[in-house]
Amino acid sequence: MSERKGRSTVALGSVSASAYAAVGGKKEGEGPLGGRYDYIDADDYFGQSSFELAESAMQGIALQNVLEKRGIMPEDVSMLFGGDLLDQCIGTSFGTRDFGIPFFGIYGACSTVSEGLSLAALTVDSGASEISGVITSSHFCTAERQYRFPLEYGGQRTPSSQWTATASGALLIEKTGEPPFIRAVTVGKIVDRGITDANNMGAAMAPAAYSTVSAFFGDTGLRPDDFDAIVTGDLGNVGSRLFCELAEKGGLELRARHFDCGRMIYDQSAQDVHAGGSGCGCAASVLCGYFLPEIRAGRLKNILFAATGALLSPTSSQQGMSIPGVSHLAWISFEKGEI
Amino acid sequence: MSERKGRSTVALGSVSASAYAAVGGKKEGEGPLGGRYDYIDADDYFGQSSFELAESAMQGIALQNVLEKRGIMPEDVSMLFGGDLLDQCIGTSFGTRDFGIPFFGIYGACSTVSEGLSLAALTVDSGASEISGVITSSHFCTAERQYRFPLEYGGQRTPSSQWTATASGALLIEKTGEPPFIRAVTVGKIVDRGITDANNMGAAMAPAAYSTVSAFFGDTGLRPDDFDAIVTGDLGNVGSRLFCELAEKGGLELRARHFDCGRMIYDQSAQDVHAGGSGCGCAASVLCGYFLPEIRAGRLKNILFAATGALLSPTSSQQGMSIPGVSHLAWISFEKGEI
Repeated sequence: MSERKGRSTVALGSVSASAYAAVGGKKEGEGPLGGRYDYIDADDYFGQSSFELAESAMQGIALQNVLEKRGIMPEDVSMLFGGDLLDQCIGTSFGTRDFGIPFFGIYGACSTVSEGLSLAALTVDSGASEISGVITSSHFCTAERQYRFPLEYGGQRTPSSQWTATASGALLIEKTGEPPFIRAVTVGKIVDRGITDANNMGAAMAPAAYSTVSAFFGDTGLRPDDFDAIVTGDLGNVGSRLFCELAEKGGLELRARHFDCGRMIYDQSAQDVHAGGSGCGCAASVLCGYFLPEIRAGRLKNILFAATGALLSPTSSQQGMSIPGVSHLAWISFEKGEI
Repeated sequence: MSERKGRSTVALGSVSASAYAAVGGKKEGEGPLGGRYDYIDADDYFGQSSFELAESAMQGIALQNVLEKRGIMPEDVSMLFGGDLLDQCIGTSFGTRDFGIPFFGIYGACSTVSEGLSLAALTVDSGASEISGVITSSHFCTAERQYRFPLEYGGQRTPSSQWTATASGALLIEKTGEPPFIRAVTVGKIVDRGITDANNMGAAMAPAAYSTVSAFFGDTGLRPDDFDAIVTGDLGNVGSRLFCELAEKGGLELRARHFDCGRMIYDQSAQDVHAGGSGCGCAASVLCGYFLPEIRAGRLKNILFAATGALLSPTSSQQGMSIPGVSHLAWISFEKGEI
C-alpha cells in the first residue's frame, strides 16, 4: 500500500502496467522508433476532416488498442486519467467520451503522461480502482496553429524550438503481479526560473525535471547507478544539456544513463526537428512503445521516467510572463520489491 | 480505507475537510452569500495589472487564507490539486507556483472543485498524502474575453447564458476525525447529449449531473431522502430544471432538496445574471463559503455535492461540435460512518 517517503515520493505496493499502446503520425513512423508503434497513420488525419478531430481519433485508436491487447471492455476500467495540449483539453474530451469510463481530466502539458501514470498507480494501489487507464496525445498540426502560427504561414523555426509529436500513448495500471511494476512516484512542484522564450521550452522545463529527479533521490536514498536509464520527457537537446548540468552541480552525474524522449523519437540528422520532439504524445508514445516493452522483456531492469511540462499559454507569453515547468516521476521496474 | 462500491463510487474511511476559504469579486460580494466570503476584492483586479494576473492573485489569496486558517505552512501540504478555465490552466500555474507544493494539474471545467476534492480525498484516505489541497478559480473578465467577446465589445447575452463568477475556493483534506467528512466520491463519465449552443451550458451539463447522481444512488443503495441537500455545480436556471426533469424520469424526485450553486451565488432579481452563475470558482466558493461551514456547524447533516463541467472550447464550438459534460460527486457529512 501507499507509503510516503520524504516530501514528495510515495512508495507503492504491487502495481503493474498491464498493457500499453503507442500511436503515431507519418513522421513518427519514419523515426528511429517507428517500428515500435502499434499504429501509424499515413497522413496524420486519422480519417477525419480537421486536425482537432484527428487528434481525438488518434486517442480513440490508442485507447481501443490497449483495451484489445488486455482483452477487456471499457466498462472494465474503473477510472481514466487523460489530458492533452489543446485549449480545454478537447482532444481528450472528444477522444474518450464514447468509451463511457469514469474520467478525471488532468493537465500537465507534456508531463501529462507521468501525471496520469502517477494518479493511476496511486488509485490502483489503494484499491480505489481495479484498473486505471491513462491516455494523452499531441498533434503537430493542432499545436502549431494553437500555440504558434497557422501551418499555411510557413513560419521559420528557431534552433531551440522543438517539434510537437503527432502521437498518443495509452496504458492500463492494475495489480497483475507481472512486470513492469510502478514502484514509486514523485509528485513534481512547479518550478519557474524566469525563462520567457516560448521557443526554448527545454530550458524552461529542465529545472523542473532536475527538481523532481533530485527529490526522488533525496526521498529514497537511492542513487543514479541503481538505474539503467533516467528518462526525461521532452527536454530536447537544449534542455537535456541543461538538465545534466544542473544535476552535476547538485552532485548527480546522470549523463551516462540519461535519455530524453524528445531526442529519441526523431532521427535528428535526417528529420528536420531542430532541438528534438515535444508534446504530450512524445513522452507517452516513447514510454508505451519503447520503455515499457523493454522492461517487460527484462532488457531494462529499473528506470526513472520523468515527463516534463511547460505550463505556459499563448496568453501568458504574450503578456510577458515567464514559463513555469513541472515534472512528475515514476520508478518503473522489472522487479517488485520494497524501497 | 478506499472501498469500491459499484461501477463509479468509492467509499472512504475517515477523511475530513479541515479548512476552507472562499474569495470573490465585487459582484459576488453583493450577492446573497457575500457575507460568507473570506475576502472580497473591491474592483476585481486584486491589485494586479491584468485580469489574468488578477485571477492568479485571487488563487494565491484563497490558498494563503486556507493555510493560515489551519495554521500550517505550504510545506505541510503533501499534494495540491488545482485547475481553472483558462487555456492551459494558467490561472493555477501562476497562482500556485510560489507555494512550492507538489502539484497535480486537473481540468474538469466547472466541475474542477469536485474533481480535486475527489482526488484529494482518495490520496489522503490511502495514506499517499497527509494533507491534500484543492484550489480552483474563475474570473468573469478572463473568461469573457477568452470564451466569448472582449468586454469592450459589450455583446448582448442570451437568456440561457450564465455569468462566470469571479471567485476562488480552496480547501484542505486530511484525517482529523472532525466534520465535515468526505464519506464517498463518485467519478463522473463524460456525457454528451448533442447540445451545441455554447450559451446554454446548463442544458449541456444537466445530463452529466444526472448520470453521476443516479450512479451514486445505484452504487450505494441510498435514497434522496437520506440527504438534506443534493447540490449541483453551475447548472443555472435552465440546467437545474432539466436536471430535475431527468431525475424524475429516472425515478428520483429531487426538487424538494435540490440546490444549485449557480442559482445561489447571485440575487437573480437584482443582479443581472440571466440563467445564473457559472465558472470553476462558483461551485468552489459556494462549497467553501457556505456548505462546508454549514455542515461543520451541524446545520446540514448530509449533502451530495456534484459540481458540473462543460468540456467545450471556442475551437470545438466554432467547428460545430456538441458540448460534452462531466460531473464528479462527493458525499459530505456531519457524521463519520460506513456506507
